[in-house]
Amino acid sequence: MVSQPMINTPIDEEVYKGLLQELEQYRKQHERLRLLFNVTRNITRELTIDRLLLRIMDEVKNVLNCDRCSVFIMDDENQELWARVAHGEDEIRFPSHLGIAGYVATTGETLNIPDAYADYRFNPNIDKKTGYRTRNMLTIPMRNKRREIIGVFQALNKFGGPFTNDDEELLDAIGAISAGQIENAQLYEEQKKTFDSFLETLATTIDARDPMTAGHSKRIAKYADEIAKVVKLSDTEREVLRTAALLHDYGKIAIREAVLTKKGRLTPEEFEHIQRHPDFTRRILEKINFTGKLKDVPKIAGAHHEKLDGSGYPQGLKDKEIPKLSKILAVCDVFDALTSQRPYRDRMNFFKVLTIINKGAGIDFDDFYVAALKKIRLDRLLVILEDEHQEKLRPGDLAFLSSFTLTDLMFAHAEIEPTLEQQKLLSVFTKYYTQAYFEKSKDDYI
Amino acid sequence: MVSQPMINTPIDEEVYKGLLQELEQYRKQHERLRLLFNVTRNITRELTIDRLLLRIMDEVKNVLNCDRCSVFIMDDENQELWARVAHGEDEIRFPSHLGIAGYVATTGETLNIPDAYADYRFNPNIDKKTGYRTRNMLTIPMRNKRREIIGVFQALNKFGGPFTNDDEELLDAIGAISAGQIENAQLYEEQKKTFDSFLETLATTIDARDPMTAGHSKRIAKYADEIAKVVKLSDTEREVLRTAALLHDYGKIAIREAVLTKKGRLTPEEFEHIQRHPDFTRRILEKINFTGKLKDVPKIAGAHHEKLDGSGYPQGLKDKEIPKLSKILAVCDVFDALTSQRPYRDRMNFFKVLTIINKGAGIDFDDFYVAALKKIRLDRLLVILEDEHQEKLRPGDLAFLSSFTLTDLMFAHAEIEPTLEQQKLLSVFTKYYTQAYFEKSKDDYI
Repeated sequence: MVSQPMINTPIDEEVYKGLLQELEQYRKQHERLRLLFNVTRNITRELTIDRLLLRIMDEVKNVLNCDRCSVFIMDDENQELWARVAHGEDEIRFPSHLGIAGYVATTGETLNIPDAYADYRFNPNIDKKTGYRTRNMLTIPMRNKRREIIGVFQALNKFGGPFTNDDEELLDAIGAISAGQIENAQLYEEQKKTFDSFLETLATTIDARDPMTAGHSKRIAKYADEIAKVVKLSDTEREVLRTAALLHDYGKIAIREAVLTKKGRLTPEEFEHIQRHPDFTRRILEKINFTGKLKDVPKIAGAHHEKLDGSGYPQGLKDKEIPKLSKILAVCDVFDALTSQRPYRDRMNFFKVLTIINKGAGIDFDDFYVAALKKIRLDRLLVILEDEHQEKLRPGDLAFLSSFTLTDLMFAHAEIEPTLEQQKLLSVFTKYYTQAYFEKSKDDYI
Repeated sequence: MVSQPMINTPIDEEVYKGLLQELEQYRKQHERLRLLFNVTRNITRELTIDRLLLRIMDEVKNVLNCDRCSVFIMDDENQELWARVAHGEDEIRFPSHLGIAGYVATTGETLNIPDAYADYRFNPNIDKKTGYRTRNMLTIPMRNKRREIIGVFQALNKFGGPFTNDDEELLDAIGAISAGQIENAQLYEEQKKTFDSFLETLATTIDARDPMTAGHSKRIAKYADEIAKVVKLSDTEREVLRTAALLHDYGKIAIREAVLTKKGRLTPEEFEHIQRHPDFTRRILEKINFTGKLKDVPKIAGAHHEKLDGSGYPQGLKDKEIPKLSKILAVCDVFDALTSQRPYRDRMNFFKVLTIINKGAGIDFDDFYVAALKKIRLDRLLVILEDEHQEKLRPGDLAFLSSFTLTDLMFAHAEIEPTLEQQKLLSVFTKYYTQAYFEKSKDDYI
């Protein structure tokens, strides 16, 4: 479209009409680019894959004026396409050659289908699963900068008729932007997953040096997270707490094995040596470049043996000087130590454990977090207690326990004439708690 | 701009002129949005902060038709602004309130300055440092989605005159997109840095369990990287190699301390026990969710004691069955073991070390990587050998050694009548190699 020269009267009607048409085209393109720019700006702000996908689906829905949008991502390893069900929590997966999405992912063609059920490639099973009724659909491949197909965009049920050519172009452009952003998010999540599983593996192997504490750090991380949920910590605080929990005993790497695994009474020197472990934890973790939200992890992990009254170690911090997340670790640490199986003894009687923790509230532990511990749902508590024997947990029992907390259990135990329900509660919980298992050896953790 | 109704002749000249103007506006806006979209597409494809910044600078330069663009990033912690010098390798840093960039970062105002040297806020020191001559400049704040200023965009020396209002708007829009992407890249790099320093800290503490091998894993990672550079491995392979090197002895966590630190001769049972460590390494690392490029790390790390002739352990793999990166680790492992100081003995005579490794070439070790080891520049080799005593290395000696390799050193040693230069080479290298240091204790590593 070349710029028109200024024309003197009389103005030619044909020229004028042409100008109006050109203007109309520009208006449309302008509107489309404006939309596209807004979509882009919104898309580039998310680096978490789930939120990114939800965001993309929302944007496409609005821009194309349609009822739904799905983004299917290629899983090359398993030859599958997967997607969050549009605006839901669930994930669907299917072989990467099936249905319309599979066709587009395989051939790289764009498909604009005005009537889905009339198309032989359409796989009605997804509608069946989701209870949705697909009418028209626009499906385009999504390519990364190397032009590889990394997924498929699918817009469903355009309001007021099938999708247009303009829609195709617009979705194509959104796809180009989204592909880069989705790959970025995948890279970020992959790195995060590797780091997380590294932390867990590390925690497991550190614990495994001492058969007494096998599985301890993972369980603490789980108990701590339950308390975090009860007291409504933020997602960020939960992540910090989980990291600190997994690493709280890392300093034990510097403790002599003979001391760590000694069965008899420790000499004063040995006792002093083993009490250095939280300090080692802090010092080692301080060498790690924990930045941003994780920067307090060394301090928090290193203070898990501090006590409210200042009688803890290594620093003898008091109440307000102790980081709140360390206070949570302290409660969970003792709870797990007392309720764990040991190679040479059974778990401590559960009600004795609770008595010890109750007595320590306000002296050793912060009341607030002891109270939170007692509010944990019993089914969740049991799943953590029986971390390594999940297969023994009966779903019916878990469902029953889900209506109760530790507090309920204590009440039931204290009752002289417990109700039938209280009796059941006591017997179900105790059945698992007192169950005997085969010992695991150190090698089982490696 | 409301759509014009179709008008019958005679056509009003005023209406016609208005139409042409409107069309012209649309054309310009259209062109701007199109540019913006392209910039966006290119920007969203980079997740590495350095490459991203270079990309942004390039795009802005092209779109605004100017000579340079700098992106200054806020470093809140240090109250500084930093930038890669436009299209260079170096970084500049200055207090975040200084100069034009500092003014914009502090006030959030956009500054469009037609003559930099006439403006009192302009800091000519940067020009002095970089040897550049700034004429006109456009500087805008860059805000994240929380509207916080995370940096400043600066375009310099527009060709053919100062920057226009249109340029301001365009740069503002690019800034909005870039801000999100820069934050993403920062998040990604931060996570990566944490993971890397975690690996290093882990390697250090694992080594520290056995004072004999303190610092071993970090040094192996460095030797291996030197070999990688000699044989021109890709960046990805180098990262895999470095990770495997840092973790290759991780399995020692499962070896009994009494065996690990025993000074005398090992019993057959103890010897067998300690030989299990590469297998433990592999098994532990396999539990980690190493994905993508890192997925072979467990296998590579677990095969560092395999030998070409099949006499190694744990699997007794032969030549082609051994991953090539494991072969590099094997050479470096032995080289470091023999050249390390031990609490109870000095380093082995260096030429005896080389003789052992030469004899092992083709039997224990792959010829190719032995040859590569011998091509490492001597200054780099020495920096690794003296990893913990960098302060003792004289720059003049390093400069001298940088012209030689291990091969040169061997020739010099074999010479019956060495030249003066060869004598100097032998004496400089040997001076450091045979130097005695105070022992470090295990605690020094924590």
